[in-house]
Amino acid sequence: MPLDNLIDGRAIAEQIHQETAARVEALKRRGIQPGLAFVRVGEDPASKVYVGMKEKTSARLGIASRTRVFAADATQAELLAFIQELNADKSIHGILVQTPVPRQIDSTAVSEAVLPSKDVDGFHPANVGKLMLGATDGFVSCTPAGVHELLIRSGVRIAGAEVVILGRGMLVGKPLLAILLQKAPHADATVTLCHSRSRDIASHTRRADIVVAAMGVPEYLKADMIRPGAVVIDVGVNRIPDPAAKGGSRLVGDVDFARVQPVAGKITPNPGGVGPMTIAMLMRNTIRAAEMATK
Amino acid sequence: MPLDNLIDGRAIAEQIHQETAARVEALKRRGIQPGLAFVRVGEDPASKVYVGMKEKTSARLGIASRTRVFAADATQAELLAFIQELNADKSIHGILVQTPVPRQIDSTAVSEAVLPSKDVDGFHPANVGKLMLGATDGFVSCTPAGVHELLIRSGVRIAGAEVVILGRGMLVGKPLLAILLQKAPHADATVTLCHSRSRDIASHTRRADIVVAAMGVPEYLKADMIRPGAVVIDVGVNRIPDPAAKGGSRLVGDVDFARVQPVAGKITPNPGGVGPMTIAMLMRNTIRAAEMATK
Repeated sequence: MPLDNLIDGRAIAEQIHQETAARVEALKRRGIQPGLAFVRVGEDPASKVYVGMKEKTSARLGIASRTRVFAADATQAELLAFIQELNADKSIHGILVQTPVPRQIDSTAVSEAVLPSKDVDGFHPANVGKLMLGATDGFVSCTPAGVHELLIRSGVRIAGAEVVILGRGMLVGKPLLAILLQKAPHADATVTLCHSRSRDIASHTRRADIVVAAMGVPEYLKADMIRPGAVVIDVGVNRIPDPAAKGGSRLVGDVDFARVQPVAGKITPNPGGVGPMTIAMLMRNTIRAAEMATK
Repeated sequence: MPLDNLIDGRAIAEQIHQETAARVEALKRRGIQPGLAFVRVGEDPASKVYVGMKEKTSARLGIASRTRVFAADATQAELLAFIQELNADKSIHGILVQTPVPRQIDSTAVSEAVLPSKDVDGFHPANVGKLMLGATDGFVSCTPAGVHELLIRSGVRIAGAEVVILGRGMLVGKPLLAILLQKAPHADATVTLCHSRSRDIASHTRRADIVVAAMGVPEYLKADMIRPGAVVIDVGVNRIPDPAAKGGSRLVGDVDFARVQPVAGKITPNPGGVGPMTIAMLMRNTIRAAEMATK
């Protein structure tokens, strides 16, 4: 019997897309065309898929996007020079450099080159710092912002909750920590960040009201590691070998979904949970950038 | 019988001062005079004392300092204009605007006005963001950096330790969290941040290897709230009424020191623990700013 405790990321993302589309319309009525630039370096297959999805969603919401593809052997100087062009281009409100970039390019230098006011990925140190300081005029990176929205729109009480985040990456763990610990509406949680060097992760996850798994270990979170009724958010995207699957491998999350779902209070499916939210937040950040640049 | 478990902040700070003085000498041999500017607004008595102490320590270490005092009714524009002057002044390597500033001045705007490369207080969002991202080319704010040095120089094992921080202020709790959670030497801790909205703080402090009290509640941390042998760092500075004391009040920390000391493995006295470290880290940041600006 299917359980009714799924957090439907696709439906929530679609709701946010509708809100964003309405804001695009409002901008267009003022004669403003929101513009988003994608930059991709090399031919990483996953990056091509991701940028393609973002292009399609932009078009559907009425955001004008353009994509520049650099060869895999592009130099950092070439990339930075192009970012400067985009920084100066008034028709572009948001800039996204798809990660990963090839080895010869310093991804920190790339993040710092994007103008903070066009940094819709929320990777610039000034935006990370503003998030940590509790300022609300910066950009929050898309995946943690998406996790936050999933919790809010699923009616999960965050204030005062015990939250355990697994993984301290800059894409999810660290910024999500910064979001949830703030003295602010839909935040105010008591947050613990666990990682590869943590001693007894299960002792933390077992006491949590909300567990966010973002460490990149396939099906790491097991049913006996959570408290019955806990909310479980699975951010993991891991490719594992599977002879029965097409291509010999399949994608799994960081949660042992089949066994955890019956114990959890609410849980994200994966796919169909956090994934769609990342794009939704990117589009929302872009429209916010366009609004802020033109108000 | 006095216990031998005190972390002597004065002695450790003095050790760091000696190291800093040697670096000042090395700069002077290259013809460089490190310069630090203090800015104070109004006549807050505590601010006068703090700036006075920092001036004295600068002089002792061979750092040239100057102080500009604005009237309590100074405008934000006047203050920001002066900060721009200091930003452009090549003889000044570090800028410190003493907090608190009067109500008519937006302290966020002040933090953001200081050039990140002269922000020896580590308050600029770009420096906070770099700290969170694990970059090592920014400035870390002085009190959390001082707590970190106290732990390191007292031989406390941080990697893998369970750390509980009480208080989420931008002066201590948040940046200390960012320091200790990094994948880095003398970090790699499992960190929980508790605050006024946390549900059961004692359940966290009782499982901690290291407790840092920085919430600003007089003698909040009691002996039954820690595990025997835990390391306790008291960052609190609270003035409480005391008819027997000179002036009718005295300063106490966030730790019930007399009763916690016998249970703790190591503990900071207060005063004489974290306090002296803050100035030591300010001086060290200043000399680092001078080195970076002139290399």
